[in-house]
Amino acid sequence: MRIVIDAFGGDKAPGAIVKGAALARKELGVEVVLTGSEDLIRETAAGSDVSLEGIEIVHAPLVMDMHDEAKLVLSDKKDSSMGRGLRLLADGQGDAFVTAGPTGAALMGATMIVRRLKGVKRPALAPVMPGLKRPFMLIDCGANVECRPEMLDQFAVFGTVYMRHMFGIESPLVGLANNGAEDSKGTQLQIDAYKLLSENPRIRFGGNAEGRDIPLGEFDVVVTDGFTGNLILKVTEGLGLSMISQLKTMFTKNLSTKLAAVAMKPALREFRDKNDHEKVGGAPFIGVRKPVIKAHGSSGETALLNAVRQAVRWAGSGVSEEIERELAASQSKDGKTESE
Amino acid sequence: MRIVIDAFGGDKAPGAIVKGAALARKELGVEVVLTGSEDLIRETAAGSDVSLEGIEIVHAPLVMDMHDEAKLVLSDKKDSSMGRGLRLLADGQGDAFVTAGPTGAALMGATMIVRRLKGVKRPALAPVMPGLKRPFMLIDCGANVECRPEMLDQFAVFGTVYMRHMFGIESPLVGLANNGAEDSKGTQLQIDAYKLLSENPRIRFGGNAEGRDIPLGEFDVVVTDGFTGNLILKVTEGLGLSMISQLKTMFTKNLSTKLAAVAMKPALREFRDKNDHEKVGGAPFIGVRKPVIKAHGSSGETALLNAVRQAVRWAGSGVSEEIERELAASQSKDGKTESE
Repeated sequence: MRIVIDAFGGDKAPGAIVKGAALARKELGVEVVLTGSEDLIRETAAGSDVSLEGIEIVHAPLVMDMHDEAKLVLSDKKDSSMGRGLRLLADGQGDAFVTAGPTGAALMGATMIVRRLKGVKRPALAPVMPGLKRPFMLIDCGANVECRPEMLDQFAVFGTVYMRHMFGIESPLVGLANNGAEDSKGTQLQIDAYKLLSENPRIRFGGNAEGRDIPLGEFDVVVTDGFTGNLILKVTEGLGLSMISQLKTMFTKNLSTKLAAVAMKPALREFRDKNDHEKVGGAPFIGVRKPVIKAHGSSGETALLNAVRQAVRWAGSGVSEEIERELAASQSKDGKTESE
Repeated sequence: MRIVIDAFGGDKAPGAIVKGAALARKELGVEVVLTGSEDLIRETAAGSDVSLEGIEIVHAPLVMDMHDEAKLVLSDKKDSSMGRGLRLLADGQGDAFVTAGPTGAALMGATMIVRRLKGVKRPALAPVMPGLKRPFMLIDCGANVECRPEMLDQFAVFGTVYMRHMFGIESPLVGLANNGAEDSKGTQLQIDAYKLLSENPRIRFGGNAEGRDIPLGEFDVVVTDGFTGNLILKVTEGLGLSMISQLKTMFTKNLSTKLAAVAMKPALREFRDKNDHEKVGGAPFIGVRKPVIKAHGSSGETALLNAVRQAVRWAGSGVSEEIERELAASQSKDGKTESE
């Protein structure tokens, strides 16, 4: 297993990424390839006393900046740490790619360089989030701002296969994010998608997921367009930060609350880890030929390590092959050929 | 001041509503009118030892059920507690109306019976939510599933005027809920609305509100379509419930956490009140001629009292008159006449 990591993606790059990559090499026993300026990677490692033993560096002089237009990853900046990493993956020189760089560029690059799986209309960005009853996949979270109903129907299949293989859920329950429970709710997109999802024999559709159901973990997979999904994801992150900040204020109020904080320390750490997006790792970009994981822009070394751990499991899971099989099966059943 | 209350709206009606109405009569010193089955209201009051002194009852034999089609409030069920209450308001026999009944029916009834303020394209449901830095209005939250850009532009004016009068914020900061900071982000609706909001001299537009900014309280008014707004509101509610449930588990884990809970009791109550939607009161339905407040379906007596408190302040605030003036001013500046 060989994991390619963008050494210059994210706010804490290259320091946290190089450290995270070294941890991954050591703890997961996989081959690691770092892309980016070789000199800077070596300097960073030396400066923080990190061993690069067993880590390959593939030199790429440029960096995709968050202000760069996404499509530059295909042209002027194809020799960026991100562009180079994606090409290594496409060329068979890696089994998965992890980046904490700009989302738009990563998605465009993955789609155009790594390319889609057979039958896939649009790949989707799909983090697995903590829910009260169970973790759930929110798909799409921003790769496709506007969606057609058939895209949402495919997202349901992606999510079903991913949750089955990665979380061992035999028959994941799929919900459609909507503003009410009835099948007449939502915009035309939700009304049409509801119909497709209801008739799809390859998923277990549980109807509409109202906003409240989503964080409570009533579904294993919540399907939505990328605009709405991005807002749900980010509102959830913001609320997590807000809650953690409020708890901090509560526990530092006076002597007795500070003493209480000592007693609560293990439980509070658990609460924080559960609700802090940085601990989660990364969001899989599902629908391209090989695993691409978008780690959070603020990823530290632990978040990066978790993203690599996820990449390793995904690359060995058979998810991509099963998605192709499932899509082929639904198309042959419909008597349709691939439309895009 | 005379507040009309739907005695049969919500999961805890009529018990909690009758109690809440009696509290409002006592604590706020306003005239209270309860609509609904007179016999049942009297029985409920007698059964729970609540005095109806100073409370007027206007008999309405029917109840709008959450499974009823919304438009029934205008026809077969116009003699429901909700329909009758709205007609009292429209006929000048009340200064504001509070209901915990079904949202769709309340909004349709308010629009068609109480009618829109001059110049208003579409009224909007707009709760004020707790943010980390400040409370903020989320407008629209479900009255208008699909919106045109001009509607979002008007919502910004509604929110600005409401937050100015009700919260004393001289120049509220308005954000547009979106999936990124740049003005090119979002669907066509957001792109077009961004332009209108930037050029609107009657508001202070602060650009796009990303999901994370919303619960952190970076804006005083967050403008969005009703579909997205409903999901943001309900996800926030669900997360609040999830956090409260997680805290409960944390604090009941063992003896030392239980002791810590004792020390934390006042702070925890504050946290709960801040994040529990039931304490908030109700969501104003802005854009109709007189204040209509939609209290949460699960409203207990305190939530109802808070909703009435809000109705009283709103009815005496001059918000409606200023919204009409502001809309007239923007229309005369544009050289346009009222389009709807």
